[in-house]
Amino acid sequence: MADTLDLIDFTPTADQLVYTFGGAAPIRRITPGSVLRLWSEDAFGGVLRSVTDLSSEKIDLRFVNPQTGPFYVDGAEPGDALALHFVSMEPARDWAASATIPFFGGLTSTDRTATLQDPLPDTTWIYQLDRARGTLRFEARYGEFAVDLPLAPMLGTVGVAPAGNEVRSSLVPDRFGGNMDTPQMRAGTTCFLGVNVEGALFSIGDGHYRQGEGESCGTAVEGAMTTTLIVDLVKGAGPGWPRLEDDECLMTVGSSRPLEDAWRVSQVELVTWLGELYGLDKMDGYQLLSQISEVPIANVVDANYSVVAKARKSLLPAADPFGGLHRDLRERAARIG
Amino acid sequence: MADTLDLIDFTPTADQLVYTFGGAAPIRRITPGSVLRLWSEDAFGGVLRSVTDLSSEKIDLRFVNPQTGPFYVDGAEPGDALALHFVSMEPARDWAASATIPFFGGLTSTDRTATLQDPLPDTTWIYQLDRARGTLRFEARYGEFAVDLPLAPMLGTVGVAPAGNEVRSSLVPDRFGGNMDTPQMRAGTTCFLGVNVEGALFSIGDGHYRQGEGESCGTAVEGAMTTTLIVDLVKGAGPGWPRLEDDECLMTVGSSRPLEDAWRVSQVELVTWLGELYGLDKMDGYQLLSQISEVPIANVVDANYSVVAKARKSLLPAADPFGGLHRDLRERAARIG
Amino acid sequence: MADTLDLIDFTPTADQLVYTFGGAAPIRRITPGSVLRLWSEDAFGGVLRSVTDLSSEKIDLRFVNPQTGPFYVDGAEPGDALALHFVSMEPARDWAASATIPFFGGLTSTDRTATLQDPLPDTTWIYQLDRARGTLRFEARYGEFAVDLPLAPMLGTVGVAPAGNEVRSSLVPDRFGGNMDTPQMRAGTTCFLGVNVEGALFSIGDGHYRQGEGESCGTAVEGAMTTTLIVDLVKGAGPGWPRLEDDECLMTVGSSRPLEDAWRVSQVELVTWLGELYGLDKMDGYQLLSQISEVPIANVVDANYSVVAKARKSLLPAADPFGGLHRDLRERAARIG
Amino acid sequence: MADTLDLIDFTPTADQLVYTFGGAAPIRRITPGSVLRLWSEDAFGGVLRSVTDLSSEKIDLRFVNPQTGPFYVDGAEPGDALALHFVSMEPARDWAASATIPFFGGLTSTDRTATLQDPLPDTTWIYQLDRARGTLRFEARYGEFAVDLPLAPMLGTVGVAPAGNEVRSSLVPDRFGGNMDTPQMRAGTTCFLGVNVEGALFSIGDGHYRQGEGESCGTAVEGAMTTTLIVDLVKGAGPGWPRLEDDECLMTVGSSRPLEDAWRVSQVELVTWLGELYGLDKMDGYQLLSQISEVPIANVVDANYSVVAKARKSLLPAADPFGGLHRDLRERAARIG
Repeated sequence: MADTLDLIDFTPTADQLVYTFGGAAPIRRITPGSVLRLWSEDAFGGVLRSVTDLSSEKIDLRFVNPQTGPFYVDGAEPGDALALHFVSMEPARDWAASATIPFFGGLTSTDRTATLQDPLPDTTWIYQLDRARGTLRFEARYGEFAVDLPLAPMLGTVGVAPAGNEVRSSLVPDRFGGNMDTPQMRAGTTCFLGVNVEGALFSIGDGHYRQGEGESCGTAVEGAMTTTLIVDLVKGAGPGWPRLEDDECLMTVGSSRPLEDAWRVSQVELVTWLGELYGLDKMDGYQLLSQISEVPIANVVDANYSVVAKARKSLLPAADPFGGLHRDLRERAARIG
Repeated sequence: MADTLDLIDFTPTADQLVYTFGGAAPIRRITPGSVLRLWSEDAFGGVLRSVTDLSSEKIDLRFVNPQTGPFYVDGAEPGDALALHFVSMEPARDWAASATIPFFGGLTSTDRTATLQDPLPDTTWIYQLDRARGTLRFEARYGEFAVDLPLAPMLGTVGVAPAGNEVRSSLVPDRFGGNMDTPQMRAGTTCFLGVNVEGALFSIGDGHYRQGEGESCGTAVEGAMTTTLIVDLVKGAGPGWPRLEDDECLMTVGSSRPLEDAWRVSQVELVTWLGELYGLDKMDGYQLLSQISEVPIANVVDANYSVVAKARKSLLPAADPFGGLHRDLRERAARIG
Repeated sequence: MADTLDLIDFTPTADQLVYTFGGAAPIRRITPGSVLRLWSEDAFGGVLRSVTDLSSEKIDLRFVNPQTGPFYVDGAEPGDALALHFVSMEPARDWAASATIPFFGGLTSTDRTATLQDPLPDTTWIYQLDRARGTLRFEARYGEFAVDLPLAPMLGTVGVAPAGNEVRSSLVPDRFGGNMDTPQMRAGTTCFLGVNVEGALFSIGDGHYRQGEGESCGTAVEGAMTTTLIVDLVKGAGPGWPRLEDDECLMTVGSSRPLEDAWRVSQVELVTWLGELYGLDKMDGYQLLSQISEVPIANVVDANYSVVAKARKSLLPAADPFGGLHRDLRERAARIG
Repeated sequence: MADTLDLIDFTPTADQLVYTFGGAAPIRRITPGSVLRLWSEDAFGGVLRSVTDLSSEKIDLRFVNPQTGPFYVDGAEPGDALALHFVSMEPARDWAASATIPFFGGLTSTDRTATLQDPLPDTTWIYQLDRARGTLRFEARYGEFAVDLPLAPMLGTVGVAPAGNEVRSSLVPDRFGGNMDTPQMRAGTTCFLGVNVEGALFSIGDGHYRQGEGESCGTAVEGAMTTTLIVDLVKGAGPGWPRLEDDECLMTVGSSRPLEDAWRVSQVELVTWLGELYGLDKMDGYQLLSQISEVPIANVVDANYSVVAKARKSLLPAADPFGGLHRDLRERAARIG
């Protein structure tokens, strides 16, 4: 049983940062039950520090979302479920950045949704964090408008090494998790990922001090983050797609293109999960989900788009997903303080 | 100023039902400010009454979502905004129906996402309403599972006659509103639609006693509904796409395929709206929305898919969209009792 | 049996032009077997006559693709197949126009694939027809380049009134045919459309002196056209989606979004057709088509995108689709001379 | 200058097969100008030998399309264009196989276009090659139908190591080429790929004795192949996406989802290429391509869908793409005999 004595604190050096899921040697070997406190660099590698720092000059899209990891989890084998319970996420700086990167984002043409139009202006916004008030200050770049937004920390990327010997950019979300960019990935949430390789080789990164659903412009309020998490394992219970659980909801994440396919994946995975928990036939699960599911879009900007399907526990009979591990992790987290 | 004395009560006869937006003669002529209490038949025309009533035997998909209307609004001209404020939605029956119609829905192949597979089983579910408890009873058809779900009435279809002399099936959502199937279309919401023809010619229908976001199986908890609404007009303020407002949020609805295009439409429309309200440059609106938007999917099953973009008012400076009409309508609604 | 004595010559006046499929009274009543010689205005209504005529100033996208028709075909009933055999298509003018209309086309954002970018420059190109050489002269607008392209006349729009009382803009392709924009719709081709209403109510328009597959910029080499066609009917044989036949190929046309759905529709329809002709099980038809189908994209710019699936007759046993009507129509066409 | 004396003959052993682009050590080091004769295993690893061999029992989709390679090309650096000219493709066996793999293919739901329907029947077809007649015999599995189809050899996969340290399954087409599955990849074609890593690390595989456009069922007539190719390099000329050239056409290949994005990519790349060759402004290239492009879909079944854009040389002024290398390679190929 982990307590703060066992807490593993890790801050990567610049040359320890990795930009892929898979393809990197483990930075540490840990045991199930470990508590980690991890520092992660922001998505831009920390180079957008003022509004005059432009992404087209300072960013190479092949090397963004630097990852902290990967960690080798003892005993993790293909077919297992890796559980990552997020105890806390704390901004590691007093400012964060966002940017409209040329030909990247949801309301612009891109290298895939290719058009002949000119790009939108390459623009950087800097948000100041007021720790006392728990707010982030948005200041317009093309006018005088300003507004304070609540701090709402989350992680954009949480993933394991992919199957089939693939190595994917940390810009990609897929079955292995990765750059899902969902605001549901926050303190209090447990993320279950199917293990594809010995040791699972998970990493995290891309801290967001706040993000809207969809991450329209392609970047959130990007900031360095200190994340405390508990790592655990459920043997033989690896899900087909990422599953999340918090105190209120069961959630699944589908990632693909077009967006309806990401939605279909998340819905079928949730029908499957309800079937496992309640013995529901797929047709009854389909019907029930049709009337209760909440569907906050995660991102419509990454290499795959991501959609979350949620079922509120208060609408369902009591159940113990993954052997009740989330509840157990919540109790362990409370003891960490 | 409307009060209950002016309330226009209308229940269509079977031969007064219409199945299109546009293409039908007005059933009544009303003035801005009118309060209507409208009865609407369920999406199935009321023919699915027990679990042995099968959609393949009783439903013709060219004639579903029977509309109550259309109403001719005096003074409404192309370019105006029609405002429909929903005062209340009350179930008009003690039961409602849902069904998996062969080759219709989100987790099946369809006439468009055409595959060579067999359809899912044609199945009907009947929900009993407990008015005292405010719940709907879901009973599994392929097992013993049952659960009570909260009543949450909404309208699937709210629309005006389309532009360009088009006539569209009441299965279609688009610029003219229509079958948007969003749970946001509920009591307390004001819906603003751009007027395309003299008189606007709006109609409503497709009452849902409850619906999940996405309406996965293609049908909600479909029931006859009694809707009380106030009709008003904002001259010259017709939006490009449907806009909704309630006490907490500004919302826009985009409808298209693939789903990312519906999302893009809703986001661009909300950037536009924020620009109108706050003088925000589109780049600043894009950035701000990226950090605050909530994106509950409406439907991924209709002729076009629909996505809602929401901006929470508590995150924004005070404003008076459409001249503050929503607030005014709320006050009028309170007086109706 | 039709001959030139029976030829019905029709040129619409400006006020006879219609802009929808469905929703218009028939302009003529004809009998199966009739030979028509129809003049059609170009997609722009003839108003783009020089490179200084800009679409943003002269075009309203709700009223383009003016149709010649609709024609009421005696005896045509829902469920029948209307056969339109194109005997010849002759340019009715010595010039034609093309344009990049702001926010319309395939390599630009649009009202659906909505982005915040500026539109591409509103530009008009005029092509001069050299009748003797059978060429169209392309002249660059932003440089000195010029090249002569072979004349290859086709019709963008061929359609009947839709089902379910819908009325659709002549910009739309769907089950009823319409704005399919496929270069396969040329002299020598027979087009089979499912009849939805008494009299079928077909119309044609949107002549192209030439078009690439996909119609990338949204407009072809748009020109007034004189089309000679034979109209016929196959009772009870209405296909689910448009089918084309020429001397070399069987073809089906699917129209939807996203583009893969248009493709799926066309492929399933062709599997179905091969099943009807050869008694092939759907699995064998699927396999065979996988190895022989040719798939020239039609358009990726209209309200629905259109894809053609082709099966080359030389790869298949002899068959008589629609009772051998195409072969018969070819013989009749030869006699018209 | 290569001649048959320099020909490098290579047949991989079973344990030399690789299943990714990137991530594998080079099997040989070669110099530009080399002529290779490569044997490649079929997509199924040779295990579907009779109609009773079922894919669900014998195939693991993480390990299909075994590659022959990768080859390290001396002097190849990021930014260069690797040129692979296909001299000949000869079936290496007298039979080939095709199959409908459960939940894989274009006319079925898949792991992405996820539905709740049952899969199509797992079926294997075996084609016998008649070398003398140059035909492949299709025999129905669910009936008596049989037909002989012309042999038309091509390669499904031709690719280099991806950028950004990614490693991709040999089921994937993307910027690096890969599993494009286009019938244009045949003898007489030169394929130009952008080099991402030192040595390029290209491989080939997935021979098809024949394939329809779209590869509807997910598999072509899959067979072991002997491919003779010439390898060359154009320094600093790496294209953004794969470009093909044969004696008749310039071609580009876009790969993404949804299918319209693959199309957009291929069209923008071809506009770019025409601009490079003729100094055409992008607007003029857009217009010209709109009237001349041919668009044979490649595949609608792989991890990304692929679309080819073609411009026929006979419609364009003479030009020397990549310094006239294709013409030169054709001459070298003729000398190999």
